[in-house]
Amino acid sequence: MTKKRTNKYKKHIKQSPGSIVYTGENPTEKLFINTFDYSPEFVTEVELNSVEEAYNFKDSESITWININGLNHIQDIEKIGNHYNLHPLIIADIANTSQRPKIDVYDDYIFVVLKMLYYDENEVIKIEQISLVLGRNYVLTFQEVEGDVFDNIRERLRIANGRIRTLGADYLLYALIDAIVDHYFIVTETMGNKIEDLEEILFNGHIQDDLSLQVLNLKKEVLKIRRAIFPIREIISRIEKNQHDLINENTIQYYRDIYDHVVQLSDSVDIYREMVWSLMDMYMTTISNKMNEVMKVLTIMASIFIPLTFIAGIYGMNFDNIPELHYKYSYFILWGVMIIIFLGMLYYFKRKKWL
Amino acid sequence: MTKKRTNKYKKHIKQSPGSIVYTGENPTEKLFINTFDYSPEFVTEVELNSVEEAYNFKDSESITWININGLNHIQDIEKIGNHYNLHPLIIADIANTSQRPKIDVYDDYIFVVLKMLYYDENEVIKIEQISLVLGRNYVLTFQEVEGDVFDNIRERLRIANGRIRTLGADYLLYALIDAIVDHYFIVTETMGNKIEDLEEILFNGHIQDDLSLQVLNLKKEVLKIRRAIFPIREIISRIEKNQHDLINENTIQYYRDIYDHVVQLSDSVDIYREMVWSLMDMYMTTISNKMNEVMKVLTIMASIFIPLTFIAGIYGMNFDNIPELHYKYSYFILWGVMIIIFLGMLYYFKRKKWL
Amino acid sequence: MTKKRTNKYKKHIKQSPGSIVYTGENPTEKLFINTFDYSPEFVTEVELNSVEEAYNFKDSESITWININGLNHIQDIEKIGNHYNLHPLIIADIANTSQRPKIDVYDDYIFVVLKMLYYDENEVIKIEQISLVLGRNYVLTFQEVEGDVFDNIRERLRIANGRIRTLGADYLLYALIDAIVDHYFIVTETMGNKIEDLEEILFNGHIQDDLSLQVLNLKKEVLKIRRAIFPIREIISRIEKNQHDLINENTIQYYRDIYDHVVQLSDSVDIYREMVWSLMDMYMTTISNKMNEVMKVLTIMASIFIPLTFIAGIYGMNFDNIPELHYKYSYFILWGVMIIIFLGMLYYFKRKKWL
Amino acid sequence: MTKKRTNKYKKHIKQSPGSIVYTGENPTEKLFINTFDYSPEFVTEVELNSVEEAYNFKDSESITWININGLNHIQDIEKIGNHYNLHPLIIADIANTSQRPKIDVYDDYIFVVLKMLYYDENEVIKIEQISLVLGRNYVLTFQEVEGDVFDNIRERLRIANGRIRTLGADYLLYALIDAIVDHYFIVTETMGNKIEDLEEILFNGHIQDDLSLQVLNLKKEVLKIRRAIFPIREIISRIEKNQHDLINENTIQYYRDIYDHVVQLSDSVDIYREMVWSLMDMYMTTISNKMNEVMKVLTIMASIFIPLTFIAGIYGMNFDNIPELHYKYSYFILWGVMIIIFLGMLYYFKRKKWL
Amino acid sequence: MTKKRTNKYKKHIKQSPGSIVYTGENPTEKLFINTFDYSPEFVTEVELNSVEEAYNFKDSESITWININGLNHIQDIEKIGNHYNLHPLIIADIANTSQRPKIDVYDDYIFVVLKMLYYDENEVIKIEQISLVLGRNYVLTFQEVEGDVFDNIRERLRIANGRIRTLGADYLLYALIDAIVDHYFIVTETMGNKIEDLEEILFNGHIQDDLSLQVLNLKKEVLKIRRAIFPIREIISRIEKNQHDLINENTIQYYRDIYDHVVQLSDSVDIYREMVWSLMDMYMTTISNKMNEVMKVLTIMASIFIPLTFIAGIYGMNFDNIPELHYKYSYFILWGVMIIIFLGMLYYFKRKKWL
Repeated sequence: MTKKRTNKYKKHIKQSPGSIVYTGENPTEKLFINTFDYSPEFVTEVELNSVEEAYNFKDSESITWININGLNHIQDIEKIGNHYNLHPLIIADIANTSQRPKIDVYDDYIFVVLKMLYYDENEVIKIEQISLVLGRNYVLTFQEVEGDVFDNIRERLRIANGRIRTLGADYLLYALIDAIVDHYFIVTETMGNKIEDLEEILFNGHIQDDLSLQVLNLKKEVLKIRRAIFPIREIISRIEKNQHDLINENTIQYYRDIYDHVVQLSDSVDIYREMVWSLMDMYMTTISNKMNEVMKVLTIMASIFIPLTFIAGIYGMNFDNIPELHYKYSYFILWGVMIIIFLGMLYYFKRKKWL
Repeated sequence: MTKKRTNKYKKHIKQSPGSIVYTGENPTEKLFINTFDYSPEFVTEVELNSVEEAYNFKDSESITWININGLNHIQDIEKIGNHYNLHPLIIADIANTSQRPKIDVYDDYIFVVLKMLYYDENEVIKIEQISLVLGRNYVLTFQEVEGDVFDNIRERLRIANGRIRTLGADYLLYALIDAIVDHYFIVTETMGNKIEDLEEILFNGHIQDDLSLQVLNLKKEVLKIRRAIFPIREIISRIEKNQHDLINENTIQYYRDIYDHVVQLSDSVDIYREMVWSLMDMYMTTISNKMNEVMKVLTIMASIFIPLTFIAGIYGMNFDNIPELHYKYSYFILWGVMIIIFLGMLYYFKRKKWL
Repeated sequence: MTKKRTNKYKKHIKQSPGSIVYTGENPTEKLFINTFDYSPEFVTEVELNSVEEAYNFKDSESITWININGLNHIQDIEKIGNHYNLHPLIIADIANTSQRPKIDVYDDYIFVVLKMLYYDENEVIKIEQISLVLGRNYVLTFQEVEGDVFDNIRERLRIANGRIRTLGADYLLYALIDAIVDHYFIVTETMGNKIEDLEEILFNGHIQDDLSLQVLNLKKEVLKIRRAIFPIREIISRIEKNQHDLINENTIQYYRDIYDHVVQLSDSVDIYREMVWSLMDMYMTTISNKMNEVMKVLTIMASIFIPLTFIAGIYGMNFDNIPELHYKYSYFILWGVMIIIFLGMLYYFKRKKWL
Repeated sequence: MTKKRTNKYKKHIKQSPGSIVYTGENPTEKLFINTFDYSPEFVTEVELNSVEEAYNFKDSESITWININGLNHIQDIEKIGNHYNLHPLIIADIANTSQRPKIDVYDDYIFVVLKMLYYDENEVIKIEQISLVLGRNYVLTFQEVEGDVFDNIRERLRIANGRIRTLGADYLLYALIDAIVDHYFIVTETMGNKIEDLEEILFNGHIQDDLSLQVLNLKKEVLKIRRAIFPIREIISRIEKNQHDLINENTIQYYRDIYDHVVQLSDSVDIYREMVWSLMDMYMTTISNKMNEVMKVLTIMASIFIPLTFIAGIYGMNFDNIPELHYKYSYFILWGVMIIIFLGMLYYFKRKKWL
Repeated sequence: MTKKRTNKYKKHIKQSPGSIVYTGENPTEKLFINTFDYSPEFVTEVELNSVEEAYNFKDSESITWININGLNHIQDIEKIGNHYNLHPLIIADIANTSQRPKIDVYDDYIFVVLKMLYYDENEVIKIEQISLVLGRNYVLTFQEVEGDVFDNIRERLRIANGRIRTLGADYLLYALIDAIVDHYFIVTETMGNKIEDLEEILFNGHIQDDLSLQVLNLKKEVLKIRRAIFPIREIISRIEKNQHDLINENTIQYYRDIYDHVVQLSDSVDIYREMVWSLMDMYMTTISNKMNEVMKVLTIMASIFIPLTFIAGIYGMNFDNIPELHYKYSYFILWGVMIIIFLGMLYYFKRKKWL
């Protein structure tokens, strides 16, 4: 995989700057376009067969959400981008999935890049880039693959009397961002659980060989999440401050609510960060405690039996004249002495709290 | 518990954004509403049976403090919120107990979220969210469960000639925040004592198996307290700078006094933080010192008896021709040599300060 | 002591906010008031018997320094505070000795809280709070107990032609703050010496059992000093920027000089901080080096004598047929072999630089 | 090498300030000048023999890129610098290869210093300084040696209908900076791979002796890359904000794109930084785990055989009266006892999870 | 030395604030005054015998550099300071050698304090304070002792057609500061070499007992250099922004060049800082690696010979009935068994990569 990524960049830089290159690793077989066209009175949900069918919505009065999955279909992305007057650099950004979350404000549209985070079935964190374009009466969303966090919004759009139907495209953008940010809470919570699991393992002293690698991976996950979440604060701030015509003044309060959530998430992530960093220290003390225990066993065994063996060695000597050897009860007295030494040692280690 | 929290968020994100969901874990059986209606001349303290009874206070000239406990009674919260013209997002924030401390300034009311901190009987830190709304002539407070830090304020309200009775709702809000912040001092002090206790345990070298877990838990507590206290500085700053009609100019000095307290608390918390982080280092050195001690015992025992055992082994050999074996005093001379070696070793270790 | 502090806060929060409570731990038996009333022409130094005697100085044209020791005499503090028109919160701050250094600027006076630092005879750092009030033609100072760093200023006031006599109350305030700040240099220097002493102990490898506690205490001292010194920068900045009528433009240069000193002190404290934090690392490596040494002794002893003992064991066996036992010089040859093994081992460890 | 660098500085400071000294370590034999002169209609690519031939381009209407390799040819650099009105300090900066990335904005040109980064064949990071001067209709680039990251731009210039041919010198400057920044991605990626390789080595527990040195070198590389990349953010910011006549308003969007890339790179570098710092911790735990394993082997061997040897010693004693010696099956019973002790020990260590 | 410094401060605080006290430790026997008086047409270099001779230069049209060595001659310093209208606090700052680098801008002169850094012959870093005063047509420099970094400037002043002769006193000040800053490069480079030397020692595993002290001293040196270099950025910024009459607009570009150098130095110092901090970690892993090696030797020796000794012990027992003792080849078979065990152990440790 390492090699592949290197190649990706190498290929990329052969291109002219601003050229459109798909840099993700999940190409889809076919482009998937799905639209919601709605007003308070009606809602139409259509799956389109070609990008050209999405052209009409640009100037219609009803509000339209065009969701496009499959960033590897570069020509189609470019066609629709051009039709909606997106700057070539924007189109390049949509296809380049290694973007940092950011906002670009143009006169007639606002471009937002965000990251969708989720844990896959192996508890590995996955990051998918999503680009959102807010124009007059429409929102375009570009995703790498199918499957997203917007099902709840789709259902609310289908309901006749939902608030979302009565409000503009700026509220739709808010709802989409809010859905993404809400999903971060699940991710940070899963992360929190993983940290607590490791804490418990360390506390119980079950040292596994791959523990330091697990901690390292947690560190990386925390850093990835930080990287996805932190820039959003700036994005929302700029929406608030810009007073762009496309954002209704009443909707701004909703964006501010996202801001509060993101600050809260940032706080949590920072606390997780501290916790993960502490895990390594905790791991180190656990190892040292284990070693202490090992050393104690060795020291106790050696301290008790080495002197006794020495005494046995003494009376194994072959000197002609060792008077003790010839007394009748010498052997039994010696056993007594040895038992006393043995018990004395036990008592000594007991008092030292080593036993 | 871990599972439950995940479910909580999962349920939450199924909702439309801004929908009112109680996210706490302490539902109460019934809503508890308690009001103080007062002016310099009179004070009325009533426990209400329904939220509707709290409607009249909105436009009365006397100052009213309406305290509501039981955030799980969402419909009631919503009713009273609507009556007092609170923005739907504010009502949602009141019910969502995982808010960060914050202030939202609206034209006709100021909304403040704070955290009440206290140690429960198991010395585990508890965090309870409290939302305060300052309107013209009234303050609403929303708490999760009964029991708070305001008893002192209640008593002062009941006294006829208390200063608090002569001042406006802005002073009441100040008094409530001040009571919460004052309580933080007890919390930080308890924390300080816990840290000192651990220091003493480590100093005395009583290594307990769960020490690293205790330190980790202290770290978490410090981070939680920080998270509750630090945002208050910004809250007070915004009250000071905003020059809102609802805050009398003379009362601002009192808010500034809270600010000083919060800065002082922040300083303390940061010092505790440093101390807790140092505890882990101290723990590590304690373990290493212990191991050193263990190793010394082993080394002294082994170094003394291994050479002696070797000598005994020599004269246990069965060679036909070992002249020493046949001298009359060989055995006693050997004992002399052994005792000299023994004492020499002792002296050597004494000089190395290992004994 | 720990319990007592808890009680202190608990008692405090029972009070109404802004109520005057002495929170220090050094009550004095009687209030001590000492005044210097001076102009270029004269100086009068009087010890007053009651606070009422200090009332006249408020409107006199001569400059007066009223020094009050004994913050536990709350009624007296309150009386004089009221006479000099101090805001109730200011009077409460004077009595509350756990204030952070700060400045409060009012229209007709400036209130400054500072900390006097000194090491007591046990080399334990002591912190005493001092409150200074600069009014038109007078300076009030409030201290907890007798004994301060102002003797030098008193002597200069007594001298007829001293510059201090020709300048206003703002210069007196400067001189007082300067005396406090100058004293910090002694404190930081003592701290520096303590750190150097510990470094030397660690370098010489004299590991004492309480070393990690000593380092921890040093950490706390550094943090306490930081806490006392750092806020002063902001205090002086505010004096400079405020352009208050009470501060003469020419005196500001003198305050700027204090600022330079405080920045210099802050730098020193930050360096001490780094040094103290490093001490713990140094301590850890010292312990590990010691352990290495212990292990080497053990390993050398064991590696030399275990093989030799094995050989002796061989020829202690009682097999009927061990040819070597019967050769005449076997015993002496064996000694030769053992000595060669012994020397070979010594050489090996020498080459490994373990000896 | 160390000596040489010292000499370099020593020589340098003998000079008057602002004097032009080549401080690099890669002198080239001859100056290499290469020009691209182009307009939408034509492109001329010439290799010049002397700097004087580069004089004419200054006032021509076509756009010219003059690339000069060989900073040790100081007189030539000075001549061309003077002809293009560069400030003497700028010319000195061009020759001094230890510059930090920076921008200097003058009235009639913009001067940018950047660092080209690449890994050489030994995976050692190399840093080459490149100076870029944007004037009206021309861009000058000064490099230390031949070989750069601009081949792609050259090819695009040679193509008749490339966008780059239709745009001004400001776009050329953008394209050059973009090429440099794009190359950083390869560098950071290689660095990421190196970190992952080390992680894997540590995870597999293959402790090599030079591992801490490898980690240290990685730290240095991360710091060098940071130093090259971070200042670029400020450079681009200043281009954006300055609204210099030389930069067309439409081109600014392209510079903003570089800014996004640099922020992304900075993020990556910071994450690598954290990772490299963690490697040292991981290394430490790996060593400690290894030691634990060693200690366990020792403890198990010693704990099993020391007691058995003691028992053998007992029955090697020469007392006249040791009854057990004379029973017929004593020897075999003893073997039984020993085997039981042996198995008991094994079971004990098994239960402790040491085996 | 420690005592002496304490005394120094104690003495100091006995003085009135702003009193002039020499706080350095290098008093010179006599005051040394050296002047360069120059214009484009002439240069006069004189060594003065008394401070009074330096009075005339104040109002002459030619530019004068008056260099004064010997800060302990306080009266002379005061005389010349007064003649050149320096504020009493400035004169006190000149004599107080523990100043932080700083700038004080007055109406008719600019006062700059800097630190000259150099390594003495014992590779100990030395810091000497230098004060510079820029007035109209003159620059005063005050140094503690003879010997400085300005010889190069002196030579350039002596040359008839040097640029320095044609420019004003502001350029002279620049040249002096530039000479000081240029010298920092030598210091940081020496520091870099010292760090690399230690890295190499650690890499080769030559653990010396004073290594942690060496690292600690390096830390202190880094912090001292930081303290000398970092404030210069602010000094230059204030010169740039102040637009003081004494600084010609064209000269500002030169000051900006110093700024670039100082930023570059700051970057280097910060990298050294990281490196020195890493050295301690590296030291720790080196110690641990050593210990691992020691433990392995012990474990291998013990694991091989303890079982063998046990076997020898068995056949040294004196049971009447040990059948093996009486077979003819028992002894040789036993040797075979022992050699097999020995080789088996070697193979086991080989496979574990311990050999």
